[in-house]
Amino acid sequence: MRFSQILIPTTKETPNDASLVSHIYLIRAGFIQGYSSGLYNFLPLGKIVLDKVRAVVKDELDKAGAMEVSLGFVTPSSFWKESGRIEKYGKELLRFEDRHGAEFLLSPTNEESMVNLVKGSVKSYKNLPLNLYQINLKFRDEIRPRFGLMRGREFLMKDAYSFHIDNEDMLREFNLMEDTYSRIFTRLGLDFRIVEADSGAIGGSGSKEFMILADSGEDTIKVCESCSYGANIEVETGEVCPKCNSKLNETKGIEAGHIFQLGTQYSDALDANFLDNNGKAQPFVMGTYGIGVSRLLAGIIEQNHDDKGCIWTKESTPFSVEIIISNIKKKEEVVEATKLYDELKSKGIDVLLDDRRDRFGAKIKDFELIGIPTAVVIGKKLGDKLVEIVDRRTLEKTEIELDNLLDEVLKRV
Amino acid sequence: MRFSQILIPTTKETPNDASLVSHIYLIRAGFIQGYSSGLYNFLPLGKIVLDKVRAVVKDELDKAGAMEVSLGFVTPSSFWKESGRIEKYGKELLRFEDRHGAEFLLSPTNEESMVNLVKGSVKSYKNLPLNLYQINLKFRDEIRPRFGLMRGREFLMKDAYSFHIDNEDMLREFNLMEDTYSRIFTRLGLDFRIVEADSGAIGGSGSKEFMILADSGEDTIKVCESCSYGANIEVETGEVCPKCNSKLNETKGIEAGHIFQLGTQYSDALDANFLDNNGKAQPFVMGTYGIGVSRLLAGIIEQNHDDKGCIWTKESTPFSVEIIISNIKKKEEVVEATKLYDELKSKGIDVLLDDRRDRFGAKIKDFELIGIPTAVVIGKKLGDKLVEIVDRRTLEKTEIELDNLLDEVLKRV
Repeated sequence: MRFSQILIPTTKETPNDASLVSHIYLIRAGFIQGYSSGLYNFLPLGKIVLDKVRAVVKDELDKAGAMEVSLGFVTPSSFWKESGRIEKYGKELLRFEDRHGAEFLLSPTNEESMVNLVKGSVKSYKNLPLNLYQINLKFRDEIRPRFGLMRGREFLMKDAYSFHIDNEDMLREFNLMEDTYSRIFTRLGLDFRIVEADSGAIGGSGSKEFMILADSGEDTIKVCESCSYGANIEVETGEVCPKCNSKLNETKGIEAGHIFQLGTQYSDALDANFLDNNGKAQPFVMGTYGIGVSRLLAGIIEQNHDDKGCIWTKESTPFSVEIIISNIKKKEEVVEATKLYDELKSKGIDVLLDDRRDRFGAKIKDFELIGIPTAVVIGKKLGDKLVEIVDRRTLEKTEIELDNLLDEVLKRV
Repeated sequence: MRFSQILIPTTKETPNDASLVSHIYLIRAGFIQGYSSGLYNFLPLGKIVLDKVRAVVKDELDKAGAMEVSLGFVTPSSFWKESGRIEKYGKELLRFEDRHGAEFLLSPTNEESMVNLVKGSVKSYKNLPLNLYQINLKFRDEIRPRFGLMRGREFLMKDAYSFHIDNEDMLREFNLMEDTYSRIFTRLGLDFRIVEADSGAIGGSGSKEFMILADSGEDTIKVCESCSYGANIEVETGEVCPKCNSKLNETKGIEAGHIFQLGTQYSDALDANFLDNNGKAQPFVMGTYGIGVSRLLAGIIEQNHDDKGCIWTKESTPFSVEIIISNIKKKEEVVEATKLYDELKSKGIDVLLDDRRDRFGAKIKDFELIGIPTAVVIGKKLGDKLVEIVDRRTLEKTEIELDNLLDEVLKRV
């Protein structure tokens, strides 16, 4: 894509209400735009990153046998009355009436809707197990929205719900989802820890959180210095690892995923049963699994940035390579840059060509702010058949002979 | 994908509130599930079709140079007060207050939000033209929701907004969008007509509708029997074609797309300006372009069905081929079907394998109801190295020698 034709409104101004690095950079680099408290528009670059992250999540869930659906966002309050959650959830639940006075809410999570969906379509143990997910809007009317995408009111979440004949099969799926989430977080280039957690407002018998390690994290977690054990401080009150007796260290994390062994709580409440192999009605045994998809964008940047801007990871970056034309008035630079641009595109590599009529300094500043992992600068030394490759993370510059350029770029993406 | 592992709750029962063929079949074949008046969940098959249609829309818009963004669904009422639309829109606009008493609405369309987005990020004529689109949820609180996806309350719409320095450039984009829409509707296999239309609640100086021709359509249109002229009956009151003086015939259509020459109405109201090449502030000249994405699913079925069920078109079908194992207890049928399944998948063809422990009759009925264009039946004559291919549209059955099967299937997809 050509920079001159895409809307990337970069700015030097730090938004007034922003304290978190990811909030500041995602706005300054033109990924998102705030329009009301806790509400954001995704601009073209932000939408591309959102789609990339979503694709990784979908790919791993599909491989694990889960199936994507799309539930309505506007949900009858009656669903939540039946489960008894409507009062528990409090004022974060946004409720309203339609023109006929019927009560609705904007779903912050979809246990009730999904149980009703399955109740209406699955009758027999023969159709189980089943893992249904969606990657859809959610709304949570936070009292004090802040931190940009980290704690927005409207947000994109992947929520999955699995249905089983018994607890044993639910535990198998729970473990499969733990592995699947690990693959998702690893592919996104995140440094994370899986910790024992409190099940909170969702309920259930056991849960684990996926924590992105970051000093700015709102959660305090304890992690073992010897083994893989970790726990949220809400549930781990001891001072030695219960698994290996080593020391537990406190650190900060951003909750980006949460998986629950839910049991029959919602099936019982909503009277959702299947017929077992003896023809007897049994409540579905459930698990539920969430990932904060829009929050992941913020989490990636909290963990991957420097004082100049964002540094995207390989599978989350909006473009794999940026080509910078140093001086757009020099025809030979334009020709060489366009040639590389076309070659990379023909190989299926997503590339951003900075063809703006701006000074070179402004272009490099935008490259550092936006955070594409690799830049190719076509500049002054083109006469000597030399161009420069810049690594965004290290800011290291490497001079490359023009003849080796394509190979070198392909090596890095 | 294996039928035994995907949730496709087909049923013989016609939903009580359904009169329209697409409404009946989309529910009976397990594409969607109603959960409240005018509100639907997309089940796995429905989600796949939605994604396929969405991909065609996105592909053609991207090729035309438009850029995808994603605006918030929950919108401050102040945006609509500023444009003056909040009263005009009436009770179809769903309004509510958040926990602090601030007024919001669920967007049925996003002119105000998009003008505010561009106002906050585009300053100069150098950044124009710009065409931004999104494929997102919308809400319209219909007084009497009916006809399934055709007139739901929550629906998926592609809405695009273009910004220009003058009317001439806006007209260029308007024509480009007319061509782009024609390509989208053609790729989706629809028989459609472009007609002159009334601009209604959106406003503007000229608009055209894309009408899917169907007897069940709610709109009456007049189409010329000689030339390509057509118009909505709301704007065409004459009895001969104004272009060629031939006869105009009345027919029914489903409005699935609408493109508007909007002008400066919203830019003026919301004080959204750019600096022209003399440094003078000018209001953006706008166009706006909508496609009812979830409605298209219903439109495709209104035009493509018989008395047995749906008949999907090539680019909208959830799977290109269905393989039916006639008798799952016969090992040789399973082996041959699985071989073909793996071969087709390895060639990137999306295929559904009906591996259920059901009677053959039930499987064929489901194939006809769901409407995948081609089925391969692996059955009784396998001993003679013969299998059957069924064309869903014609229901024609062709016996094929096993050795020619792969070639024959590839020819049809």
